[in-house]
Amino acid sequence: MTEDGDRFERVPVPRHSGDDYTSEAAARRREFASERSEGGLEHVGSYSFDPALVAGNVEQFMGVAQVPIGLAGPLLVDGEEANGEFYVPMATAEGTLVASYNRGMRLLHECGGVRTTVVDDRMQRAPSFVFESARGARDFSSWLEENMDAIRAAAEATTSSGKLLDIDRFAASRMLYTRFNYSTGDAAGQNLTGKATLAACEWILANNSTIESFFLESNFATDKKASQVNTLRTRGKRVVAEALIPDDVLRSVMRVDTESLYRARQVSHLGGFMAGVNNNGSHSANGITALFIATGQDAANVAESSAAMVYAELRPNGDYYYSITIPALIVASHGGGTGLATQRECLELLGCYGRGKVRKLAEIVAATVLCGEISLGSAIVAQEWVSSHDRLGRNR
Amino acid sequence: MTEDGDRFERVPVPRHSGDDYTSEAAARRREFASERSEGGLEHVGSYSFDPALVAGNVEQFMGVAQVPIGLAGPLLVDGEEANGEFYVPMATAEGTLVASYNRGMRLLHECGGVRTTVVDDRMQRAPSFVFESARGARDFSSWLEENMDAIRAAAEATTSSGKLLDIDRFAASRMLYTRFNYSTGDAAGQNLTGKATLAACEWILANNSTIESFFLESNFATDKKASQVNTLRTRGKRVVAEALIPDDVLRSVMRVDTESLYRARQVSHLGGFMAGVNNNGSHSANGITALFIATGQDAANVAESSAAMVYAELRPNGDYYYSITIPALIVASHGGGTGLATQRECLELLGCYGRGKVRKLAEIVAATVLCGEISLGSAIVAQEWVSSHDRLGRNR
Amino acid sequence: MTEDGDRFERVPVPRHSGDDYTSEAAARRREFASERSEGGLEHVGSYSFDPALVAGNVEQFMGVAQVPIGLAGPLLVDGEEANGEFYVPMATAEGTLVASYNRGMRLLHECGGVRTTVVDDRMQRAPSFVFESARGARDFSSWLEENMDAIRAAAEATTSSGKLLDIDRFAASRMLYTRFNYSTGDAAGQNLTGKATLAACEWILANNSTIESFFLESNFATDKKASQVNTLRTRGKRVVAEALIPDDVLRSVMRVDTESLYRARQVSHLGGFMAGVNNNGSHSANGITALFIATGQDAANVAESSAAMVYAELRPNGDYYYSITIPALIVASHGGGTGLATQRECLELLGCYGRGKVRKLAEIVAATVLCGEISLGSAIVAQEWVSSHDRLGRNR
Amino acid sequence: MTEDGDRFERVPVPRHSGDDYTSEAAARRREFASERSEGGLEHVGSYSFDPALVAGNVEQFMGVAQVPIGLAGPLLVDGEEANGEFYVPMATAEGTLVASYNRGMRLLHECGGVRTTVVDDRMQRAPSFVFESARGARDFSSWLEENMDAIRAAAEATTSSGKLLDIDRFAASRMLYTRFNYSTGDAAGQNLTGKATLAACEWILANNSTIESFFLESNFATDKKASQVNTLRTRGKRVVAEALIPDDVLRSVMRVDTESLYRARQVSHLGGFMAGVNNNGSHSANGITALFIATGQDAANVAESSAAMVYAELRPNGDYYYSITIPALIVASHGGGTGLATQRECLELLGCYGRGKVRKLAEIVAATVLCGEISLGSAIVAQEWVSSHDRLGRNR
Repeated sequence: MTEDGDRFERVPVPRHSGDDYTSEAAARRREFASERSEGGLEHVGSYSFDPALVAGNVEQFMGVAQVPIGLAGPLLVDGEEANGEFYVPMATAEGTLVASYNRGMRLLHECGGVRTTVVDDRMQRAPSFVFESARGARDFSSWLEENMDAIRAAAEATTSSGKLLDIDRFAASRMLYTRFNYSTGDAAGQNLTGKATLAACEWILANNSTIESFFLESNFATDKKASQVNTLRTRGKRVVAEALIPDDVLRSVMRVDTESLYRARQVSHLGGFMAGVNNNGSHSANGITALFIATGQDAANVAESSAAMVYAELRPNGDYYYSITIPALIVASHGGGTGLATQRECLELLGCYGRGKVRKLAEIVAATVLCGEISLGSAIVAQEWVSSHDRLGRNR
Repeated sequence: MTEDGDRFERVPVPRHSGDDYTSEAAARRREFASERSEGGLEHVGSYSFDPALVAGNVEQFMGVAQVPIGLAGPLLVDGEEANGEFYVPMATAEGTLVASYNRGMRLLHECGGVRTTVVDDRMQRAPSFVFESARGARDFSSWLEENMDAIRAAAEATTSSGKLLDIDRFAASRMLYTRFNYSTGDAAGQNLTGKATLAACEWILANNSTIESFFLESNFATDKKASQVNTLRTRGKRVVAEALIPDDVLRSVMRVDTESLYRARQVSHLGGFMAGVNNNGSHSANGITALFIATGQDAANVAESSAAMVYAELRPNGDYYYSITIPALIVASHGGGTGLATQRECLELLGCYGRGKVRKLAEIVAATVLCGEISLGSAIVAQEWVSSHDRLGRNR
Repeated sequence: MTEDGDRFERVPVPRHSGDDYTSEAAARRREFASERSEGGLEHVGSYSFDPALVAGNVEQFMGVAQVPIGLAGPLLVDGEEANGEFYVPMATAEGTLVASYNRGMRLLHECGGVRTTVVDDRMQRAPSFVFESARGARDFSSWLEENMDAIRAAAEATTSSGKLLDIDRFAASRMLYTRFNYSTGDAAGQNLTGKATLAACEWILANNSTIESFFLESNFATDKKASQVNTLRTRGKRVVAEALIPDDVLRSVMRVDTESLYRARQVSHLGGFMAGVNNNGSHSANGITALFIATGQDAANVAESSAAMVYAELRPNGDYYYSITIPALIVASHGGGTGLATQRECLELLGCYGRGKVRKLAEIVAATVLCGEISLGSAIVAQEWVSSHDRLGRNR
Repeated sequence: MTEDGDRFERVPVPRHSGDDYTSEAAARRREFASERSEGGLEHVGSYSFDPALVAGNVEQFMGVAQVPIGLAGPLLVDGEEANGEFYVPMATAEGTLVASYNRGMRLLHECGGVRTTVVDDRMQRAPSFVFESARGARDFSSWLEENMDAIRAAAEATTSSGKLLDIDRFAASRMLYTRFNYSTGDAAGQNLTGKATLAACEWILANNSTIESFFLESNFATDKKASQVNTLRTRGKRVVAEALIPDDVLRSVMRVDTESLYRARQVSHLGGFMAGVNNNGSHSANGITALFIATGQDAANVAESSAAMVYAELRPNGDYYYSITIPALIVASHGGGTGLATQRECLELLGCYGRGKVRKLAEIVAATVLCGEISLGSAIVAQEWVSSHDRLGRNR
């Protein structure tokens, strides 16, 4: 078939690869696309940076999506890395979203802010190994443990910032599935862990002759996918956001009382359990996605990062303790899309650009999420939800 | 506390609401934010459209995120609505992604394209009802069925494009959880269904005195959350993409054979089952997110839309049958963010802007996803995965 | 290979099949087994009924397991079919179990009994159908709907007590998975539904030429397996048991207060959600299994019947509302093991033997389960749990 | 209220506790029950052992359930502890079951037997700890690690056979959920681990003042409940059974070919994934339950032990590799119900009674299960399933 490779028209690529990330190359692609479009690509072509900036972030670059950013805040955070007030850039096209988060931020500011804690931090690559029989898989599990030092050395030789923490092992049939867990500094770390794990596996393959075959991934990482193993064992940052909300404050800001809010939550928890959700809260994906797009995170990780565990208590004095645990929040303050033009600006607005800032960013995301949970939860109880969409939203 | 509302500085809002979606208001907010930032917001302010366009899409607008778009294709689709070659705009900052999807598109073009089918289409709002005891919940379930005509009339009075198809009912404890299933035309339909369902519930509350309390959502929709109920019962479009890949074509384009690819897939299926994934494939969220951002879909729906079921067969002649089923693909060709500047241009590029185009868009998304699955799967088997990231990617 | 069938010794089978279910045949098998055992089979041979009774229940019969039965009660039930006090036979070898359930029965008797409700009732057989492509599967789904009358007629022709209620349909790849839902009278119904569904499928295959292949089961029933689809869509009886427990009664019987019990429950709910349980309660399988063995139910169905949803409320006056929903309780008062010697006696003790009694039995099981939940939950909070096992139990 | 204890009639208890486990006490209870029954309890009273034997296994003893036992075999096992042929006692009232397992045993005998491997072995008790905030939970997780030696010493002081292997820790909200993992010798170990963990927790509570509250169980063990955490992290024995089945042998014994069987399996795997099963195989609960009842295991553990992962391969030469992994098989050869009259006899028949035999038993169970999987799978493909129930079964 390949002899017939010309039968379809490829997206234009410059003759010299050095010309690929230029305005000319991008314009040539837009021209090519426009000829095949019902409209033009004027706005797509209206980017404000040098295309050289996106080398390493995208291939066959032709322009940009302009996603509207609303500014919410101030968000008051009582974190270990994030402390004080933040103004939060949220990129979204969903009417009401920014307003709703903003309202939650106002409420929790009145309540003294959101306490945030990063409780774990580990990124994976998850190779699987196949053996002649189950006994081979079991014995290899022990072998891995015995050779941990050498494996770690092989992995860490490929990276300056990654550390191999440990290797989770899960046996089934004649396979051993593993999770190589790393700390990855300020990068999200998917690529760093891929490279390190491949090096480790090369060492393993050279030193263990019982392996029949090997795959660098077999659905155990689980990159870009929700999974129970991530909820249990963490992927990226495991962050908790907590707040204590007095009944009178809730009433004044949200027009609902804590007892009603609490009862609605219990009904939701049972609903979610029966529905088989991976998130028993309300809509953490909304806040996470808006922050991810604004700050250059990989929005495809919303698949994993949208998992959440809400836990609430109605205290005897009427206070409402509310918390959310995000077990797989995948964020970076360095690398990936964080250095792009608008993305870097948004990270700087949060004081989260560059080295040593990734946990601060994780805390801000978690705090933002908690504000949105309370706001939507209150709206449902107050039955304002649909009317607020009518007032502010677009989709009628 | 509210008397002390001034103790923090609000994001600036114009005196007259008519001035809210203007360049001046946006500039004023950027100025406010810049004073609190480590950097500026020049690029965020470099949008190319009239801010009036985003009224209804965002609040407290201050500018845009510029997300790089790569152009992949041609994607050859053999769908019911989408037919022929498409050039696909993918908005992402993840190096390798566009190249990988592009490679998959080349492969499946050689194989005759991707067959796509929308097998179901329904959007939900999911109110719960609480009764004195379980018997009340059970009896209400029958009552709903008996009063279906009146309930449908109440719901449909609020919308010109939504149709109430049926109401799923799930009893637990003294609650009845429901899913009001609608067809929603070319809109994603979350807001339309919210409004219609609220109207239906108002009719219900007025006509049934046994209801103790009611919530418009209780984790059964499950909006912005992965869930088994969505995988089983569909949310948005349920789309299947299928392809048949001859062994020689796979070898020539991907440098792997179909048998190896198939064996790797089986190991992944078991891994995913043990890990508790909601997607036994590779990384559909990558393609979906890139298309969602480019075309103005709600990227927070990646939480639901990233669910997938891959099914593969190695045929006796060596052909590889490969399919992916996306049970909760939430897309719109009208409403939401589809009319924004760059987003509309990207929809037009696909011939998917406006009325009557939503299923075509769903088919293109599914076909794109299948290309990415084969490409990453092949790279893992060929052990090229890490090396391709090294060559093209950024995150070292 | 079959020519070499003699190379191993088969379990003895009488020359005439009419002699199979006799004391002699059973004795011959025990003798055969004893020769290969470290001990004898005297107790196994000490059954008190005519072996002819077990024809249809077991093959290669050689004797019985004698499982100890403890008598718990009185259980006070406020059901629709079960009303009043019951003494409950529980077959188990787990020390403490009967005592613990008995204690719970005492508590809920003091509270006015357990309210029980059967909220749904449906048994499945779940054939899958394979087509040339996804479009075939989708079209077949419509075809099924259009031909429902004929399909129902074919199914119901095979049974006097089964009724085909509806057919759930779930599309994925080029398959359509179905659940044929039946009401099955007083039988559990797995065999009845198998026979009826096979007949229906034969009609379908004769009248639809698009089906490439067909399997009577493909993991969608899901017989002898826990599944979310059963939790959502019911298998067997869906039963709710509810009770209202005043604080002072709980304190006097259980030595714990309702608030402590409630708080422990909330922590358990979050734990279970994170752990990925199919039952957020305590140990319903204990009561269900003990009743299943005593009354001739199929204890292998504990796989499905152990799913449960606990929902609790702490009322403002300190009352504790407690409920459990068992979505897949598979019970029979007729057929299967219900007519065996001891099993029938235990059903008669509950007034649940024979026609028209199955829902009564379901209610008694659910009520028993609720008693055990409260009892173990209280013990954990009171930290009496381990000490009670020490006092009563065996396994030190 | 207890002063009013007389308003209902308690189950008779002898005046002296020493008289509790006697024939007289049992007879008195049967008499009490018979007066309230539609029938008698003659068969229930026909037990063949001294009631003193069941002290520690049941309370308020009144007799036995007589569950029919069929003898299947020979089962050919190629295990590490179990080697050679076994005749398997299966206690069940489900017609066809023994015949079906027997048929599978014949097939796999022809194929050279079932290879079995115990790949892990750990029993849990799973306390949760509550703190003032998430930071307390996180810090406690480190504290546990630092104090592991003392905690282990406290736990192991209570038991001669249990060893504390490690403590899994899972943080959410202001809680730390743990799993104390033990090896438990030949006992199932639920009680042993309860006692040891309580002692460990008492040491912890005495030495750590940050704990706000503590529960010995919070749904993380997960005793008597299916869960993903057990599938991932093992509960009891994690056992794999494997076999290699030549096409001609399958055809001669089962009248199906390996390719058809394999294709049916793939369709079932997708079905199970969509249905949300915890077992992608066919019906392992049937064999497990029958063996559990016969050999004195706790049949309520079928809730956990029915989880399974089937993995199959169709080899290029037409051989069918078939395996099942049971991640939470809870068995004992000592303690619990293993010493009861018929139960001990059945264990002795397998050479599995007493010390040092538990892994052998686990291997026999897993091998039996694999035989049943192949047998039912073949019947479905051969469409013999319903007809064999008709011929042998009872439930028409």
